[in-house]
Amino acid sequence: MSSSDPALLTLTEVAAALAAKKLSSREVTQACLDRIAVAQPKLNVFMSIEADSALAAADAADAALARGDSKGVLHGVPLAHKDMYYEAGHVVTCGSKIRKDYVATTTSTALQRLKDAGTVRLGSLQMSEFAYGPTGHNAHYGAVGNPWSPAHITGGSSSGSGAAVAARLTFAALGSDTGGSIRMPAHFCGVTGLKTTVGLISRAGAMPLSQSLDTVGPLAQTAEDCALLTGLMAGVDPADPTTSTRAVPDYLAATRGSLQGMTIGIPSAFYVEDLDAEVARVLDETKATLAREGARVVEVTLPEQRQLTAASQLVLAVEAAGFHAQWMRERPQDYGPQVLMRLQNALGVPALSYLEALRWRGVALAEFVAAIAGVDAVLAPVSPVPAPTIEESDVGNSLNAEAVIQRLTRFTRPINYLGLPALAVPCGFAASGLPIGLQLFGRAFDEATLLRIGAAWQRATDFHTKVPEPA
Amino acid sequence: MSSSDPALLTLTEVAAALAAKKLSSREVTQACLDRIAVAQPKLNVFMSIEADSALAAADAADAALARGDSKGVLHGVPLAHKDMYYEAGHVVTCGSKIRKDYVATTTSTALQRLKDAGTVRLGSLQMSEFAYGPTGHNAHYGAVGNPWSPAHITGGSSSGSGAAVAARLTFAALGSDTGGSIRMPAHFCGVTGLKTTVGLISRAGAMPLSQSLDTVGPLAQTAEDCALLTGLMAGVDPADPTTSTRAVPDYLAATRGSLQGMTIGIPSAFYVEDLDAEVARVLDETKATLAREGARVVEVTLPEQRQLTAASQLVLAVEAAGFHAQWMRERPQDYGPQVLMRLQNALGVPALSYLEALRWRGVALAEFVAAIAGVDAVLAPVSPVPAPTIEESDVGNSLNAEAVIQRLTRFTRPINYLGLPALAVPCGFAASGLPIGLQLFGRAFDEATLLRIGAAWQRATDFHTKVPEPA
Repeated sequence: MSSSDPALLTLTEVAAALAAKKLSSREVTQACLDRIAVAQPKLNVFMSIEADSALAAADAADAALARGDSKGVLHGVPLAHKDMYYEAGHVVTCGSKIRKDYVATTTSTALQRLKDAGTVRLGSLQMSEFAYGPTGHNAHYGAVGNPWSPAHITGGSSSGSGAAVAARLTFAALGSDTGGSIRMPAHFCGVTGLKTTVGLISRAGAMPLSQSLDTVGPLAQTAEDCALLTGLMAGVDPADPTTSTRAVPDYLAATRGSLQGMTIGIPSAFYVEDLDAEVARVLDETKATLAREGARVVEVTLPEQRQLTAASQLVLAVEAAGFHAQWMRERPQDYGPQVLMRLQNALGVPALSYLEALRWRGVALAEFVAAIAGVDAVLAPVSPVPAPTIEESDVGNSLNAEAVIQRLTRFTRPINYLGLPALAVPCGFAASGLPIGLQLFGRAFDEATLLRIGAAWQRATDFHTKVPEPA
Repeated sequence: MSSSDPALLTLTEVAAALAAKKLSSREVTQACLDRIAVAQPKLNVFMSIEADSALAAADAADAALARGDSKGVLHGVPLAHKDMYYEAGHVVTCGSKIRKDYVATTTSTALQRLKDAGTVRLGSLQMSEFAYGPTGHNAHYGAVGNPWSPAHITGGSSSGSGAAVAARLTFAALGSDTGGSIRMPAHFCGVTGLKTTVGLISRAGAMPLSQSLDTVGPLAQTAEDCALLTGLMAGVDPADPTTSTRAVPDYLAATRGSLQGMTIGIPSAFYVEDLDAEVARVLDETKATLAREGARVVEVTLPEQRQLTAASQLVLAVEAAGFHAQWMRERPQDYGPQVLMRLQNALGVPALSYLEALRWRGVALAEFVAAIAGVDAVLAPVSPVPAPTIEESDVGNSLNAEAVIQRLTRFTRPINYLGLPALAVPCGFAASGLPIGLQLFGRAFDEATLLRIGAAWQRATDFHTKVPEPA
């Protein structure tokens, strides 16, 4: 691939090039399909590659634009998403055997809003079975390979989304984040991912995992790209009564802000404990760079985070089992062993524990918000380690499976429990060549501040511009 | 007492007489206190009688009015409420030993809105311990006697509210209805009681029993009085995020409507099964009278109601145990045996059962609303029996306690589960002299239709005007 490969552009760049007719949707779509054809056999990123219909849609987009008929800011941009966003008439597997042939009859609001802006469907992306797994393994469809090293995991559950963006097979991809499922693949694959505030983006037509914790969000090359997508998808939706009615900020405008005047907190505990040495190094280097670029970096003392992780895990487990109750009774044999074990483990949770975990949320949020009152955002690792290998993390339903899962996700779950936004950004590389991301988290519905810091960071660094060699 | 006793007036009448200065607040308040002094030793209706402060407040109200300074439509009206509505500076026992000396630091929104309309506090009314019991027994403060026959129960949990209105000790009283706690005392004591739609009246500052099911509502002599009070209390409250933002209808205007054009459904099953012969007779007579007065009375086939009762019971039990978890651990000996048993029974409920009971609510509501599409309201018994004796229903924590409770409440719980409104109205008397009430239930936030039918019914009948002989 030459450096003039249009698939290497950012979403913002390709959208501008298409609008300016410097590139056609067919050229861009073909460029993605060419890369997909190379990567797919080695990385197992796509669930479904829909080359013919994508090129037909690209041609239609080009024809429409030639007539002066642009659908929106993403007119002609080819995208693929985590295979849990329903699109009427298309199979949506949810990474499962149970829904292997399920044809959606409705289209998810988030996806529809991107379609309304002009996107072209490339196909669908791999994911952990029913989004219930942080590694990227899938008992039915196999693990997704990390584009930086195919023997390593991508992270999950938005495994295909992280890998596809990293490998430049799509300009961006929807993920979902219930316990870290956007931030983990962003970190392990070296891309940018935004976990949005609960209530910002409609979940209507997205496969549910946990009604209290599920969030929709983008993975893309840059914070600017995430801002563009979030602005398109955010806002009240009658089909999802949990969506907020508040006005959607101009996220793209926010990304033009600088690090000057920004105060970034570094937790004094928990998030800085038991870190792999490379993650600790990247955190230190990032602090130094942020300070050098004009941000104020201070230590911040957060409330106890372990309890948030535990409460998050309990709520997720119970609600997932709630959604799966009927299938668990009727088709247990059609689940992968790890997913089935985790769903079944929730059957023993008492109602009172669940209720207390839900009720504690408001109290914990109030304490957390008070603790971060002095900073614009908090910076922390996404996970204590870079990507482990597929083999070493293939724990199935073994006795230590939960322990492995908990270790990987302990830094992401507190934010899910609190319902807050978090932006994962590439911040360095391990000696192995595997990327390391960090997360910025902040106040409810203040994605704009996180995107501002992320975009300013990306103007000062080039980690997000690195592209893995084709596998 | 003579028939010119001002305490015998309805709320609407006394409010008008006070506004017109035909009566003073002192006269009215003294009239209530006189009746309270006679009734209290025999019926145990009040938790706290505050004669001196009530008279002082009455004098202040009279003085204000003399200056042309009316607070509102209830200026100078003395009222007492179920002792679970917090009023800053006053003890609020919640019918419990645990809160025997608890002084509230805030005032409940519902109560504040009545105070803002000018009410005078008479004291507080007995209730079942923590509102968790349908009979009116209380292990700490004794049972409340039914004004029609002190050896019989009042029903609960708003036991004092039902008895005090029936005995004309207060012009109206707040109750709360989580599983039937307004409608049961209204039925057993022969008064009118409105169970409101979940979200119509703020629960801020009201003792919680079940977050999903709790509702605030009035007990009074007439539907018109209930309309007056509901109009004052209803409407959005920032302190209770579950309150609806919809505009509050003019309930008083609704009460001026007639039965002409109203279609009233009689369930074909469940609510007409296993009825005491006297309740069945009253239901038949009521149907005939309604038809004679111009309503269309039709049979209506409802979805299975037993499952609604069961789901309601499960949600209530779990959420009550949630609110009581800490006290259950720390002060189990301070609960009455029945309440403790019922709270502890909830500890074994699996989270999944609770979650499924919550999730089924929307589905069940949609089915129910479809089933009643052809009628304005449904008419059904509140309970299959008139009031049993205090002795025969004093089941404590015996093995058959739940069975007794379930039998009494099986006709009220479905409506709680669905969150719908229901109006209990006096419709006759048993040969024993005990009153029999029926309930009208209908669509969410359509209290106006129920109040219209109830008020028209009360213009055509005189059951609600009967006053028990002073006990």
